[in-house]
Amino acid sequence: VIEVPWDIISAEKGGFKHFMLKEIFEQPRTTADTIKGFISREYTLPVSLNEFRRVLITACGTSYHAGLVAKYWIEKYAKVPVEVVYASELRYSDNPINEKDLVLAISQSGETADTRFSALAAKEKGAFLVSVVNVVGSALDRESDYTLYTHAGPEIGVAATKTFTAQLAALYCLAVSQSPEREQLMAKLLSVTSLMEEILSRAEDIRKIALSYSSAKNMLYLGRYLSYPIALEGALKLKEISYIHAEGYPAGEMKHGPIALIDEKMPVFVIAPRDRTYEKILSNVEEVLARKGNVIAIGFEGDEHLRQKAKDVISIPHVEEDLSPFLTVIPTQLFAYYIADFLGLDVDQPRNLAKTVTVE
Amino acid sequence: VIEVPWDIISAEKGGFKHFMLKEIFEQPRTTADTIKGFISREYTLPVSLNEFRRVLITACGTSYHAGLVAKYWIEKYAKVPVEVVYASELRYSDNPINEKDLVLAISQSGETADTRFSALAAKEKGAFLVSVVNVVGSALDRESDYTLYTHAGPEIGVAATKTFTAQLAALYCLAVSQSPEREQLMAKLLSVTSLMEEILSRAEDIRKIALSYSSAKNMLYLGRYLSYPIALEGALKLKEISYIHAEGYPAGEMKHGPIALIDEKMPVFVIAPRDRTYEKILSNVEEVLARKGNVIAIGFEGDEHLRQKAKDVISIPHVEEDLSPFLTVIPTQLFAYYIADFLGLDVDQPRNLAKTVTVE
Repeated sequence: VIEVPWDIISAEKGGFKHFMLKEIFEQPRTTADTIKGFISREYTLPVSLNEFRRVLITACGTSYHAGLVAKYWIEKYAKVPVEVVYASELRYSDNPINEKDLVLAISQSGETADTRFSALAAKEKGAFLVSVVNVVGSALDRESDYTLYTHAGPEIGVAATKTFTAQLAALYCLAVSQSPEREQLMAKLLSVTSLMEEILSRAEDIRKIALSYSSAKNMLYLGRYLSYPIALEGALKLKEISYIHAEGYPAGEMKHGPIALIDEKMPVFVIAPRDRTYEKILSNVEEVLARKGNVIAIGFEGDEHLRQKAKDVISIPHVEEDLSPFLTVIPTQLFAYYIADFLGLDVDQPRNLAKTVTVE
Repeated sequence: VIEVPWDIISAEKGGFKHFMLKEIFEQPRTTADTIKGFISREYTLPVSLNEFRRVLITACGTSYHAGLVAKYWIEKYAKVPVEVVYASELRYSDNPINEKDLVLAISQSGETADTRFSALAAKEKGAFLVSVVNVVGSALDRESDYTLYTHAGPEIGVAATKTFTAQLAALYCLAVSQSPEREQLMAKLLSVTSLMEEILSRAEDIRKIALSYSSAKNMLYLGRYLSYPIALEGALKLKEISYIHAEGYPAGEMKHGPIALIDEKMPVFVIAPRDRTYEKILSNVEEVLARKGNVIAIGFEGDEHLRQKAKDVISIPHVEEDLSPFLTVIPTQLFAYYIADFLGLDVDQPRNLAKTVTVE
């Protein structure tokens, strides 16, 4: 056994208490690095997304949530149907994949067993296989017809953070890659990284709010449209490192069941940027309040409607609808981190979890 | 105010304590009635499913879960790609719907606002609109190009039970409608209703098991393939009427986060018929046990592997893989019912919920 002196580990953490916190704070840079890879290296996908009858995205965990965001972007810009399927489900289904399909496999490590095997089976059936990985030379990278790389660097914390935003960056670049406005859209995307910095500079405000929810046993996370996958991802972070039973839901489904759970003991985390669904999600907030639920909301700076309704509001800078996931996800990561740290849990190595799931 | 004498209400409940229980017990008949509607009336869909580039299913709540089951059946028999989208999400997305798409809208009442409006928008874009409703002459029925009717009769309990299995029956008939083995498949389907009777005859065993979980505050429901939507549906029933925070997950995703939640206080409900994913779900059961989780499982009679591992096993008769959802869902309905009744909750009229969600 070689004992590593504490100060070396500390140095690796760059002064942060945990790798996860360091990695959350690296996101403006890792996002920018990933975008620049697309701007400079001029990825030229040898095919057009919309020459396929559909794009089939397959992934697990956090990468699956990145896929759900990408679905909305690809549908908007490439105008091709997109289906997102859990890799562990795709493997055992009779999904009729053929050469008219582009399969997009997303995996940080490029080694996730279910993702690899479902992607390989799709390729065998004739699909064109594109992967998004963070590890050059990984199995999935080698097995794919084309690979998009995220430039997030090694991620030590088991709970994915910077690799998620890097995946979003790569997927956005892919979605707009054949748009006539490609250049402007990617320039705007790059500018979002300075807004990410702004949010991180207010981490202390988020910490204070988070600690007031540290005794929660259950939570619901709600969002619509691009914020629906962010609700799922926020809930997953809280599950993974805080062991709080948080569940994400598309807000429109609340009335079909989950609302029965809501009372003063079930805080509801609502992701509410001013996008096409803003008015609808405000109604959802009112429904939660009518059931005596406590709402913590992420909303745009100066959103007085939201501030009047929610118990706590985490403000984020105004941003175009398309790009809101890059901003809304950061407070959900910090919220989970600060609660887990406050509870004294092993943030970087949560119980029962492995960083890379190479078993099925 | 007209007071209805207690004995009239009681008579309407046919001797059952609640409408929900009565409706659960009606399922062999309502399922058979729905199937017979297809056998006798010879529904002839004026189009072939596989002449479309995809089938897009849209629905909310329990109907959405029926859609997830139907996806696997349609992919298997009609060999056409199927996407299932929450109606409240479809409405606000840029899903590129056109005349090459068949849209299948599922709603018990035929009045669900989000389902109707997303279906109507799809029809306007040129899609062929087929609906599955339980109410003849409902808005969605009138608005569709073609309607498949479930013959479940009026459902009084807010938590859907018999309409779910009736939807499954209609959707199975649709999936196999252009198969050369159509007649045999539908005959087999009809025979499943006697197996449903068998399960109901053992309701008392399920009640005893359910009561031993009545103090749970949280639960996970896991399934794979056709049992994944049943896991979602089982969790939804428990949420709706017992106000226990139950969450459904595809079992293969457990290792990507939810497993961190598992300890002796988080019972895990595993749906494990002997199908193509049986070995995989047994591994998932072992993973739960390794984290000291308590497993309650639904499995086939005589499944000693499962009995050795799970704390409690609810046995169901052997059935072909395809048809397992008709059997596996019944114990999940009874489980939720008996817990809610034991807790003294208003089973037929749970807090915060409406039977038909005509608001957005």
